Amino acid sequence: MFGVKRADTEADVLEANASFYRAFSRADYASMSRLWAERAPVACFHPGAPLLVGRAQVLESWKQILRGPVPMRCDHAVVHLLGDVAFVTCYEGNGDRPAHLAATNAFVLEDDRWRMVHHHVGPLSSPIAKPAPPSKAN
Amino acid sequence: MFGVKRADTEADVLEANASFYRAFSRADYASMSRLWAERAPVACFHPGAPLLVGRAQVLESWKQILRGPVPMRCDHAVVHLLGDVAFVTCYEGNGDRPAHLAATNAFVLEDDRWRMVHHHVGPLSSPIAKPAPPSKAN
Repeated sequence: MFGVKRADTEADVLEANASFYRAFSRADYASMSRLWAERAPVACFHPGAPLLVGRAQVLESWKQILRGPVPMRCDHAVVHLLGDVAFVTCYEGNGDRPAHLAATNAFVLEDDRWRMVHHHVGPLSSPIAKPAPPSKAN
Repeated sequence: MFGVKRADTEADVLEANASFYRAFSRADYASMSRLWAERAPVACFHPGAPLLVGRAQVLESWKQILRGPVPMRCDHAVVHLLGDVAFVTCYEGNGDRPAHLAATNAFVLEDDRWRMVHHHVGPLSSPIAKPAPPSKAN
């Protein structure tokens, strides 16, 4: 269950996770809507807020949030694979500022595409600096 | 995938989630250790803290936390079923005080038992009152 095409699968999950942050940063509601699962149950904890349940409620919240672009960065993304379900943990930050939020993003394979089913984000007690870009010498 | 024995499955996941809060409240490290998955990847975001990854690191954190009992209550638990994976969302509170934390607890079926793979908890902006006990008239 945890070995088949693991590297490819992790890359696919990371790409789904990256597409979430691209949609967020570009205020691209259409892409955000396509990312969230159609059939699997979905839910969302925005920072400090009570639970949102169901595609309609979750997508309505994103429609409100994506009225303008938010330069949301995702650092240190780690994939945790559980067969046809995966969750990604990462830190979120704005622009070049240190990350100030911890996020869990859950995905499920739906029609051979990783689609989002849960987003939980909350504050970090100590911000975490943006990783240095890879050295050009390497 | 999402229909078979749904009610029984949800009850089993809720019981696994309840066992987490029992172990927490009783400072029962042995039960906490048995609850966390042995083979599936595990991770944990304690409030405000950076990610812990892997069973050893996660369990070591619980060993520290469970040095004394913490009367941790779980309100409004909702099961989100994804086949052999499930996540539970709930609010956490101490004793009779309003819940002050939002939690996501993820579980995976391992050897026919629901075992924990992820715990992410963060503060609520507005505490949520403890639900009233069910009326005896009903």
